[in-house]
Amino acid sequence: MPTGTALLTDRYELTMVAAALADGTADRDCVFEVFARRLPHGRRYGVVAGTGRLLEVLPHFRFGDEELATLRAQGVTDARLLDWLADYRFGGDVDGYAEGEYFFPGSPVLTVRGSFAEAVLLETLVLSVLNHDSAIASAAARMIGAAADRPCIEMGSRRTHEAAAVAAARAASLVGFASSSNLEAGRRYGVPTTGTSAHAFTLLHDDEASAFRAQVATLGTGTTLLVDTYDVEQGIRTAVEVAGPGLGAIRLDSGDLPTLAVSARELLDSLGAPRTRIIVTSDLDEYAIAGLAAAPVDGYGVGTSLVTGSGAPTAGMVYKLVERDGVPVAKRSEGKNSVGGRKHAVRRHDASGTATAEVVCSGPIDPADGDRDLVVPLVRGGESCSGLAPAQALAEARAHHERVRATMPAEAFALSRGDCAIETIHQ
Amino acid sequence: MPTGTALLTDRYELTMVAAALADGTADRDCVFEVFARRLPHGRRYGVVAGTGRLLEVLPHFRFGDEELATLRAQGVTDARLLDWLADYRFGGDVDGYAEGEYFFPGSPVLTVRGSFAEAVLLETLVLSVLNHDSAIASAAARMIGAAADRPCIEMGSRRTHEAAAVAAARAASLVGFASSSNLEAGRRYGVPTTGTSAHAFTLLHDDEASAFRAQVATLGTGTTLLVDTYDVEQGIRTAVEVAGPGLGAIRLDSGDLPTLAVSARELLDSLGAPRTRIIVTSDLDEYAIAGLAAAPVDGYGVGTSLVTGSGAPTAGMVYKLVERDGVPVAKRSEGKNSVGGRKHAVRRHDASGTATAEVVCSGPIDPADGDRDLVVPLVRGGESCSGLAPAQALAEARAHHERVRATMPAEAFALSRGDCAIETIHQ
Repeated sequence: MPTGTALLTDRYELTMVAAALADGTADRDCVFEVFARRLPHGRRYGVVAGTGRLLEVLPHFRFGDEELATLRAQGVTDARLLDWLADYRFGGDVDGYAEGEYFFPGSPVLTVRGSFAEAVLLETLVLSVLNHDSAIASAAARMIGAAADRPCIEMGSRRTHEAAAVAAARAASLVGFASSSNLEAGRRYGVPTTGTSAHAFTLLHDDEASAFRAQVATLGTGTTLLVDTYDVEQGIRTAVEVAGPGLGAIRLDSGDLPTLAVSARELLDSLGAPRTRIIVTSDLDEYAIAGLAAAPVDGYGVGTSLVTGSGAPTAGMVYKLVERDGVPVAKRSEGKNSVGGRKHAVRRHDASGTATAEVVCSGPIDPADGDRDLVVPLVRGGESCSGLAPAQALAEARAHHERVRATMPAEAFALSRGDCAIETIHQ
Repeated sequence: MPTGTALLTDRYELTMVAAALADGTADRDCVFEVFARRLPHGRRYGVVAGTGRLLEVLPHFRFGDEELATLRAQGVTDARLLDWLADYRFGGDVDGYAEGEYFFPGSPVLTVRGSFAEAVLLETLVLSVLNHDSAIASAAARMIGAAADRPCIEMGSRRTHEAAAVAAARAASLVGFASSSNLEAGRRYGVPTTGTSAHAFTLLHDDEASAFRAQVATLGTGTTLLVDTYDVEQGIRTAVEVAGPGLGAIRLDSGDLPTLAVSARELLDSLGAPRTRIIVTSDLDEYAIAGLAAAPVDGYGVGTSLVTGSGAPTAGMVYKLVERDGVPVAKRSEGKNSVGGRKHAVRRHDASGTATAEVVCSGPIDPADGDRDLVVPLVRGGESCSGLAPAQALAEARAHHERVRATMPAEAFALSRGDCAIETIHQ
């Protein structure tokens, strides 16, 4: 379970609260909005992820004795602030896009309402969770699109921070990854976990056949044998010899995969193993996956590119004060992207049910047939509106993403750089 | 403190152990080596980071009742494996580069020796920690180089996973960042924390002067006032009016910083505040910092680029079996980058003490004058060789990095894409 999260915070949030407590502005009713000014270069959509994780960590955002002692040790000695923090629990409201929803520039992904002091404190934690998880989910969704009906396996834990790895496995599952190598993601979120062996296991043994025999003896003939430690062709022959034609799969982790997959398929067929699947790994990203669409491949294992957001490791969301005591506010020098006031948002659709626009407005939106409200209540009076356990919340987000994916226009899933899949209309 | 870390692991490590326990190879004496095959495109060096964190989390890599129940729930039901895991504690040896050391392709950054089963289990956790932290430290070191004598402040927590943010603040401190916004990095590692206010604080107030007065009243005139919420020139005038000529600093977070800094400096001087410093933030990376070298800037706040490794969010290190029962082994199809056998490594220097080469060899290295051994003992029989608390370990790594930096050739610190700063000689 998450432990205390109150120090996963930027110091300036505390200094702002201290100053606001002193001059009486801390209690002003405020609305903060989370949104992305733009998508990463050429991306056609983003996917909201992390909302469920945020609801998990929010109750742990409390300042206990240890946290307060830490602050004192760091020179935060303002007695009024420390007293206030000791009693702090977020008691406001949060609304936002359902987890798994698509988002576009300016989409009001999350809205936090409360007193200035209680709401400003959450800025860093909210952004850390949403920026990381949404970056991974957005990249993962492109991989799922490229893989079409073939399953994708998340195996990138080793390429990112050990805790980020768990969140990355969760975000990948959310958009349709079939499984993950990460055991903690299995424990915490019910993500199916898979894994068989590495090259080290083959090298441990006196020869490849001994390694394969050991693996099959323990994991059964349905296992996946890694055949490229020495020579791929010989590896495949040995694999079928050892496991028989019922061998579940072989894994190719190096070489020119499109040609290698063709020759591996031919060889497996000629060895009487036409049902043995071919899983490819080796530094795949959405483009490499697309490049394998015509190859006889049965599944993709994705690591580095997934957990680093395939070139866009953070979603670039910001947390901005948009309303104070009912009055819209905005930093002036930032230009038109900052619009004051609490936002409403709907997704507009054509008669066939295909999404055509994101309509965002600081007032009520003129309704049209087929509009779908995008903003849902997440927290009321500090309490989560979701009674779901973490694994259930993920399953619901996954189902929501799948439903919404069916409403997106086909061009959304082109991998080439382009404009946003649908336009955002600021009414 | 870190909690249980044994499930921050890829499932295939457990399936390999299960199969090796069954066929009697689990106890073979093995050496695994962590190294990077290459540096990110055009980088001239990498910086090892995470070693200290690894020594923190290693003792928590144990399979207690909860972990074992989780594995059973995930279908890991092999009784021999579960019994073995229940008794598991790493009892082997770890050697490696001192934290803060520079590394190059093929540098044996970490070597883990033990039985196959006990050593293979650590693969994912070791790589997660080293790949993340080294990626951040390597990027941060380039920023420190570009900033020369001006202090850099880490403020990227919101752009990365909330736990990765703490490690990122630590990695930045390791290579010379002066402070961080992250309170937990302050608590856990003694990183100095700083922070004043965001635009939201100004927008909370009826006008800019009220916000500045509140901040100065609470934080003193030595604080840093954020002057670009409305109009920068007016913001600076108001700041000096409110705080007086003793104002510590102003912060500029938008606009064309090189020109803005010049006019801000002139204005501050004309207002009688020549000692008020100018801190710039706004999406800085090493190139933007270099572009401000001639501008009258007194400090840099760095966020997104730092925590995402400035284009290289993972260090690409791998964990490879290189020796089994004293016999060098290597995956054949990977080519010359995989060299079997446990490695020795020294840094070679010229008569002036400047580094000239990294010498790596699976046997003893012919010594030369000025050679420095790079591999130091880190763990013996499962116990850390360091008696240092986390904050002390970081301080020592920071001091080591600073010492070694002075020995690197000047061209190492060019920001342009180039070859490695020194060549690696495989003897």
